[in-house]
Amino acid sequence: MSDTVEAFDAVDLIRTKRDRGELSTEQIRWLIDAYTRGYVGDEQMAAMAMAILLNGMERREIRDLTLAMIASGETMSFDTLGKPTVDKHSTGGVGDKITLPLMPLVASFGVAVPQLSGRGLGHTGGTLDKLESIPGWRAELSNEEMFEQLRVHSGVICAAGAGLAPADKRLYALRDTTGTVEAIPLIASSIMSKKIAEGTGALVLDVKFGSGAFMQDIEKSRELARTMVDLGTDAGVTTTALLTNMNVPLGLAIGNANEVRESVEVLAGGGPADVVELTIALAREMLAAAGQPDADVEAALADGRAMDSWRAIIAAQGGDPDAALPVARETHTVLADRAGVLVEQQALPFGIAAWRLGAGRARKQDPVQHAAGIDLHAKPGDRVAEGQPLFTLSADEPARFARALDALEGAYRIGDEGEAVQNGGPLIADRIA
Amino acid sequence: MSDTVEAFDAVDLIRTKRDRGELSTEQIRWLIDAYTRGYVGDEQMAAMAMAILLNGMERREIRDLTLAMIASGETMSFDTLGKPTVDKHSTGGVGDKITLPLMPLVASFGVAVPQLSGRGLGHTGGTLDKLESIPGWRAELSNEEMFEQLRVHSGVICAAGAGLAPADKRLYALRDTTGTVEAIPLIASSIMSKKIAEGTGALVLDVKFGSGAFMQDIEKSRELARTMVDLGTDAGVTTTALLTNMNVPLGLAIGNANEVRESVEVLAGGGPADVVELTIALAREMLAAAGQPDADVEAALADGRAMDSWRAIIAAQGGDPDAALPVARETHTVLADRAGVLVEQQALPFGIAAWRLGAGRARKQDPVQHAAGIDLHAKPGDRVAEGQPLFTLSADEPARFARALDALEGAYRIGDEGEAVQNGGPLIADRIA
Repeated sequence: MSDTVEAFDAVDLIRTKRDRGELSTEQIRWLIDAYTRGYVGDEQMAAMAMAILLNGMERREIRDLTLAMIASGETMSFDTLGKPTVDKHSTGGVGDKITLPLMPLVASFGVAVPQLSGRGLGHTGGTLDKLESIPGWRAELSNEEMFEQLRVHSGVICAAGAGLAPADKRLYALRDTTGTVEAIPLIASSIMSKKIAEGTGALVLDVKFGSGAFMQDIEKSRELARTMVDLGTDAGVTTTALLTNMNVPLGLAIGNANEVRESVEVLAGGGPADVVELTIALAREMLAAAGQPDADVEAALADGRAMDSWRAIIAAQGGDPDAALPVARETHTVLADRAGVLVEQQALPFGIAAWRLGAGRARKQDPVQHAAGIDLHAKPGDRVAEGQPLFTLSADEPARFARALDALEGAYRIGDEGEAVQNGGPLIADRIA
Repeated sequence: MSDTVEAFDAVDLIRTKRDRGELSTEQIRWLIDAYTRGYVGDEQMAAMAMAILLNGMERREIRDLTLAMIASGETMSFDTLGKPTVDKHSTGGVGDKITLPLMPLVASFGVAVPQLSGRGLGHTGGTLDKLESIPGWRAELSNEEMFEQLRVHSGVICAAGAGLAPADKRLYALRDTTGTVEAIPLIASSIMSKKIAEGTGALVLDVKFGSGAFMQDIEKSRELARTMVDLGTDAGVTTTALLTNMNVPLGLAIGNANEVRESVEVLAGGGPADVVELTIALAREMLAAAGQPDADVEAALADGRAMDSWRAIIAAQGGDPDAALPVARETHTVLADRAGVLVEQQALPFGIAAWRLGAGRARKQDPVQHAAGIDLHAKPGDRVAEGQPLFTLSADEPARFARALDALEGAYRIGDEGEAVQNGGPLIADRIA
């Protein structure tokens, strides 16, 4: 209880949303401010989050919620940089390491890419965890270091300061424990409040759908993409989104160090076709948003400019781009039990298996095991011979293999030549602008 | 976090109910147990309560929830008393003092009436608060004292022990602050868990509907009554319910001491017609449930048996039935500004006005002001002359009158002879068995 007179009563606001009413701008502003101050309790916000999840919010309410979360903390500006800024956000998926090749690729065109990231609780580590498998690399930069790196190298991936949208931080942790993660107004305002507060001039969203995505249903993903694009546009940030397929793992590596390895292959002009395709598509979106619609992205990958950019940016953050990446103590390889075509490889079970191998964290304070993960040797549509390796599990503790293999039961299948491949369609399903 | 292995994950259960699924018996049992232990947090229970409010529960789930709340604490049994027991519960309304004349009336037939009550946050105090306006009367009895009083006098009204359904206590407080009070599965299981744990053999429910009730809509009240009657029946408690009208205040007194005064009038064979009608109807239900369907209830009021029972029961709990009741320091009487018929007298504004005069409490720890309240001098349908007193407000602090009168703006109306009276129909609308 506070001694100041409060403008609203939390119970009234919860009841309004519970009864399918609309919250006013002033009510939403008060709610987020009072929650940040601790006057509105977690149990009240949890009831509100469930009411929002089940009853929805109008576009105007979502915008007010986003602005209120921005107002709960500090904001940054890259205006003094003297070059355009563009950021990218992915809703996350199994094997999604796209930020790693994408950031230096776009930066190699002189466009500033400020990737402020968190760590999260995914099947594998977040972008910061993946990069921390590079010896010496550090995620924590001061604001001055970050600006200086953007000025000199145009790219940075570092830990987001705690000062950006602190209300979102508290609300996100609450949603995690109260079954209220999957509410589009809450997801959209959470992502966009941080990106808008960060001060990027443009933003490209990679919104995933399919069995390994946060939202399985493409229409739900489309709604989320549309909501976020509208929020960005309303806030003066040039925002576009790609709807991309997450029914099968992205690329061949699922983990941390192995995903860095795969990203370096892409920067060297190689790498799996799907990772290359998505990297190029997102780079084109970002460069177009930054005023370079005709940038020759493929050339920058082919001629080493993107790789040079990567090496400089990694080195600037203390990393040794030539150092050997960690390798697991144990591996376990699964072979094809028949000849045929790999017709199924479900993203979600492979994600869970990687998590059980130690690639992700169970609790926020846990470390990830950088060398743990899965390397795929075949992708859906590939012909395989009997006895050919299908995938290799890596872990530091052999006891982890059995539980990982449990998760993979029924998750992949070798079929006959000509059988339909279950991959859920093209990689890039739609573009929202 | 506990070190024991938990049978379920709270987030899974919340998501199940959020997605309109059914919770199993084991899941509900675990949820309430884990909430009582503190393993499931308030914020998780708040999200669950909102999901239950919006998505409902099956009859089987509500029964499991009720049983789980009973299992969270101790249970009592009146088997050794050697006489039938019957209790009554009202969902509460403005001027609802029926327990006061009803309990001694039924007890005068040798049927044990164990009224274990709470205090609550209503417009006026609860039954215990009302009785505490009698000098010397005390609400706190040991179990031994309660049993002895039931043995000798057949009636007791005392504070419910903290040991009965403690999960309900915690959940009720949470619902109060999270906008989740109005969920039928939660209301029904809250009321019935306490009544079943208390060990009564029969139970009569007074379920109110109308503007001054917890649930305005009669169909919602019917659903609540049906749910509670089913819960009681399933648990082996003979349970019936009356659906009663709470569009206008019950009786002429709204407060604490003045409600005791009115109750004593009823026990003396007088009192307002509606209070008498409901007291008699509920007494008949209770006595029928206790095996005395032909008990002459009116005679017990007329010949002083009910009054003798009242005096003995009040005295047994330290109260002086002859002592003067407290009187407020200030009164303010509102007169009719024209002649005509009182066609409207809305329960809710009169309840709020009584609360603003000090008759109810704002926070659980606050005391009530026993002499504060409202005395009505006319009821809907009564003819009034210009200048005739309509009602009198009583308070210890004169500053309270203005805010109470604000609440009464538009709450009553004098119309022309022949104009329809807005009282929402008969007092007793239906019986559910």
